[in-house]
Amino acid sequence: MAPADELKPWKSLGRFELLDASPWLRVWREDFRLPSGTELAGFYKLELPDYVIVVPLHDEGVVVLRAYKPGPDRIGIQLPGGYIEPGEDPLTAAKRELLEESGYSSEDWSSLGRFTNDGNRGSGTGHFFLARDVRKVADPVDDEMEESIVQTMPMGELVDAMRAGDVHVLSIVAAIGLAAIPR
Amino acid sequence: MAPADELKPWKSLGRFELLDASPWLRVWREDFRLPSGTELAGFYKLELPDYVIVVPLHDEGVVVLRAYKPGPDRIGIQLPGGYIEPGEDPLTAAKRELLEESGYSSEDWSSLGRFTNDGNRGSGTGHFFLARDVRKVADPVDDEMEESIVQTMPMGELVDAMRAGDVHVLSIVAAIGLAAIPR
Repeated sequence: MAPADELKPWKSLGRFELLDASPWLRVWREDFRLPSGTELAGFYKLELPDYVIVVPLHDEGVVVLRAYKPGPDRIGIQLPGGYIEPGEDPLTAAKRELLEESGYSSEDWSSLGRFTNDGNRGSGTGHFFLARDVRKVADPVDDEMEESIVQTMPMGELVDAMRAGDVHVLSIVAAIGLAAIPR
Repeated sequence: MAPADELKPWKSLGRFELLDASPWLRVWREDFRLPSGTELAGFYKLELPDYVIVVPLHDEGVVVLRAYKPGPDRIGIQLPGGYIEPGEDPLTAAKRELLEESGYSSEDWSSLGRFTNDGNRGSGTGHFFLARDVRKVADPVDDEMEESIVQTMPMGELVDAMRAGDVHVLSIVAAIGLAAIPR
């Protein structure tokens, strides 16, 4: 256990690309010098696109999606979100994804933070947003890769559903926590 | 938007391994038939080890770690946790990681759920645990790859620190949410 003022980052000594599946995925082996002085060879790092997740709120609760996701290979509760497009800023992506996936829009946005997907590998950064007073302004855009049901759930019901195992994806759990913990 | 009873999973038509860096990482291209009937070729899936995260509670608050993590490449607040070893069950891994990383032990464990790391790619499953009435029984195990400071923070301070940007990793945000949302 290091004293507080002795915590230091690892120092990169160079990296080697193992797989380039841009824009979806790049895999690297990276060599580091640890704070102890030891050299660590071939630590795996992953680059994936950054993404947004939106918690859309109105008087009746949270606008959620019920959808199949290939990561867990299950149907469960999701929130609007998706990859940030090249050159797009996170808030613009959040507004676009909310509208495309749910048909809702908001003029009251705030950030819930940004977090790295994997503490060891990297794997992209999620940008989390709260959208208050959302209004339905359109139909969701049809996308055969993202078929979904748009529903409204009171926050308490959403938390109960999460605890009952109806939320399967880590970013959705994080978004619910960020929005549901009392201030 | 599909009617509720029409949501269906994707059907796998086969997969091709792109990279085998076992036990840390495997990358696949997988072909699917979407519910619409369209064939989707070469969707990337990632296999990473499953892991545990522990929220250790005692009278004075949550036992947290301050540590450098290579994913975000930053020093911040972490919780005890790590990869599940081959053949190890998640609760055993949680008890081992809590003891190794913090020196604390508990006889009151409950599950906070299990969640897939990436909704699209998979990337392993995190198993989340609450450990109540933890007691310090040992010193943390020295590990030059995981130098850390063990601290206790009241849950409210931990939530404030998360909101202030001192938590950088998604699994830690999820764990804090799962433990901090009132029942």
